[in-house]
Amino acid sequence: MTQHADVLAIARDLLRCPSVTPAEGGSLAYVAEVLSRAGFTVERPVFSEPGYADVQNLYARMGSGGPHLVFAGHTDVVPPGDETQWTHPAFGGDVADGVLYGRGAVDMKGAVACALAATLDHLAANGGRPKGTLSFLLTGDEEGVAVNGTVKLLKWAAERGERFDHCILGEPTNPDALGDMIKIGRRGSQNGTLVVTGTPGHVAYPHLADNPVRHVVRMIAALLAEPLDAGTDHFDPSNLEFTSIDVGNKTVNVIPAEARARFNIRFNDLHTQATLRDLIKTRAAAAAQGARWRFDWEPSNADAFLTAPGPFVALVGDAITSVTGRKAKLSTSGGTSDARFIKNYCPVVEFGLVNASMHGIDERVPVADLVALTAVYREIFARYFG
Amino acid sequence: MTQHADVLAIARDLLRCPSVTPAEGGSLAYVAEVLSRAGFTVERPVFSEPGYADVQNLYARMGSGGPHLVFAGHTDVVPPGDETQWTHPAFGGDVADGVLYGRGAVDMKGAVACALAATLDHLAANGGRPKGTLSFLLTGDEEGVAVNGTVKLLKWAAERGERFDHCILGEPTNPDALGDMIKIGRRGSQNGTLVVTGTPGHVAYPHLADNPVRHVVRMIAALLAEPLDAGTDHFDPSNLEFTSIDVGNKTVNVIPAEARARFNIRFNDLHTQATLRDLIKTRAAAAAQGARWRFDWEPSNADAFLTAPGPFVALVGDAITSVTGRKAKLSTSGGTSDARFIKNYCPVVEFGLVNASMHGIDERVPVADLVALTAVYREIFARYFG
Ligand SMILES: [Zn+2]
Ligand SMILES: [Zn+2]
Repeated sequence: MTQHADVLAIARDLLRCPSVTPAEGGSLAYVAEVLSRAGFTVERPVFSEPGYADVQNLYARMGSGGPHLVFAGHTDVVPPGDETQWTHPAFGGDVADGVLYGRGAVDMKGAVACALAATLDHLAANGGRPKGTLSFLLTGDEEGVAVNGTVKLLKWAAERGERFDHCILGEPTNPDALGDMIKIGRRGSQNGTLVVTGTPGHVAYPHLADNPVRHVVRMIAALLAEPLDAGTDHFDPSNLEFTSIDVGNKTVNVIPAEARARFNIRFNDLHTQATLRDLIKTRAAAAAQGARWRFDWEPSNADAFLTAPGPFVALVGDAITSVTGRKAKLSTSGGTSDARFIKNYCPVVEFGLVNASMHGIDERVPVADLVALTAVYREIFARYFG
Repeated sequence: MTQHADVLAIARDLLRCPSVTPAEGGSLAYVAEVLSRAGFTVERPVFSEPGYADVQNLYARMGSGGPHLVFAGHTDVVPPGDETQWTHPAFGGDVADGVLYGRGAVDMKGAVACALAATLDHLAANGGRPKGTLSFLLTGDEEGVAVNGTVKLLKWAAERGERFDHCILGEPTNPDALGDMIKIGRRGSQNGTLVVTGTPGHVAYPHLADNPVRHVVRMIAALLAEPLDAGTDHFDPSNLEFTSIDVGNKTVNVIPAEARARFNIRFNDLHTQATLRDLIKTRAAAAAQGARWRFDWEPSNADAFLTAPGPFVALVGDAITSVTGRKAKLSTSGGTSDARFIKNYCPVVEFGLVNASMHGIDERVPVADLVALTAVYREIFARYFG
């Protein structure tokens, strides 16, 4: 019987590092230690930006030539919230009844631990080197503003001549059970604010004023009246949500001068940011009825992208099936991830743990899931470099 | 030629009192001095309420038996705003080119001065006593919260056995020229907040959340879709204005838990506060589509009221016509006034100066208007006690 690396020990060591963004908390130092000892060349670039905290990152590489598979992820975590509500310490690495507790257990120190263990196993089974190149691209700025994280790390690696053929991103992708779902793309995201300007006045003389609240309500109703599209082969219908309307008028007898409505759109591959903005503007204009309005669009949002099903997606899916017995659904649902940056460099597929407890109180993972995900990653490495 | 009281001198004296609510600034002391000297019995009750400033008031009475005509008004004023923008001091009582400048010139120290001058003239022409009872009911809390003002003064007077037959309230009623408009009633006013509760969540998973912004927009649109009524003989159509929507959600990726929309309704004599609330609730319910919602109604609003046209309204109108040559429109438009309290004690008609500059920079009144309004009040007294 083959001896495997102790994924639980690695995961517990990582969970004990208090690495709430932007703190490194010892987490990347630990990964660097494991990978250096295995023979990887490890670099730890720190990125800076005026007005933002410095963030530590890690790039580790082993082997030479193609194919080059990169495992991407993050070791930073969201804050634990009210720690008194946790049944086990958020940074204790406790195991109870076969379940490992701690912030980052599923998002995504657990998956990083699985990738490290799978790497050690793969090297042990293959004479200490991959038949190609295997690398780790880990950031400490995924849960925060993502300014000094994966975007800069990818650029930094490209400038050093690193070329990736494929990427596995270890975000938690499974809704219910390990093997449920692979993410092969993500919807785009666009934030904006509809600003309507009126003419202030007194409520007793509405004919002398022009109430922007009337206009903004009518325009929002029109924007929500029809779906943006009906979805595509691999994407859900695009969705518009107004998440705040703010007038801030404290004086109930006064008609205000301005109303602002902020929204987010999750959109599929029928749109780009540019065509989407045009569509929204056209629909708003049709309902404006003479109101003065504009959209303030927010920058740094991403277009939708798809890693089209093909040999690499099939390889990952087959590896999952061989370990879990499940046929993973190919999905593009949910929020955004650093895959939106990675897809500009190579095809990227996301597969990790079950996401049910992520960001919550008592974030946790069954030890059996850690063992199984390690086996999946090991199987992916074996097939990829086989 | 009859010698008349110097209304300009009285008005200037009053304008020089810095009586921004709740400060008395010497204004009621001045009125008390004028009326005492003319033979009135003057009382100056001060009313208190925990959490509010004490406010001085004045009640002065002369004569006995009926009919009893009360002149009502206020000597407090709104703040001057940016005094550097005034071309004359806000509390200087300057006259330039036949125009008197100062805060309160039209709202309503000017009209108080006219009523005082008309009273002196009437007494001089009638042997020093009215044929009936003439009184003054003046407050220092009309422009503020109106807690320690006319409401308490009316109750105080009633408890002392004072019974009024008719009231003239000297608020500025004329849009363009003296004699344009008498106010014979006021619309009711009702403030409230529509509160819609949803289920918060992440914008990427809208099916797991219930966005209260969608609900509140749909419900507001429904409430604004149809007029509340078509108006009545003496009233404009009732009007609903939403003056603020506030969600306060700073996180654009999060669907909020609650949305609040505040509104004011100006309503006519087809409604009471109770029937109006029922109407609004019925219309909201029809558009709720399962949303959780409630209305928070604000207290201390007034029902609509009408002083029905009849001999007293005709007397005031004829007096105006005889002085100005204008046939005053009988109106119920505009905001609320202390008439909403007075109407519970006796029929009340409002007539005063031209309201164009009230509450603004360079509030001002032509001296000719002061002279003419004094003549109107004098004519009213003559006909009323004639
Ligand atoms: Zn994550
Ligand atoms: Zn006033």
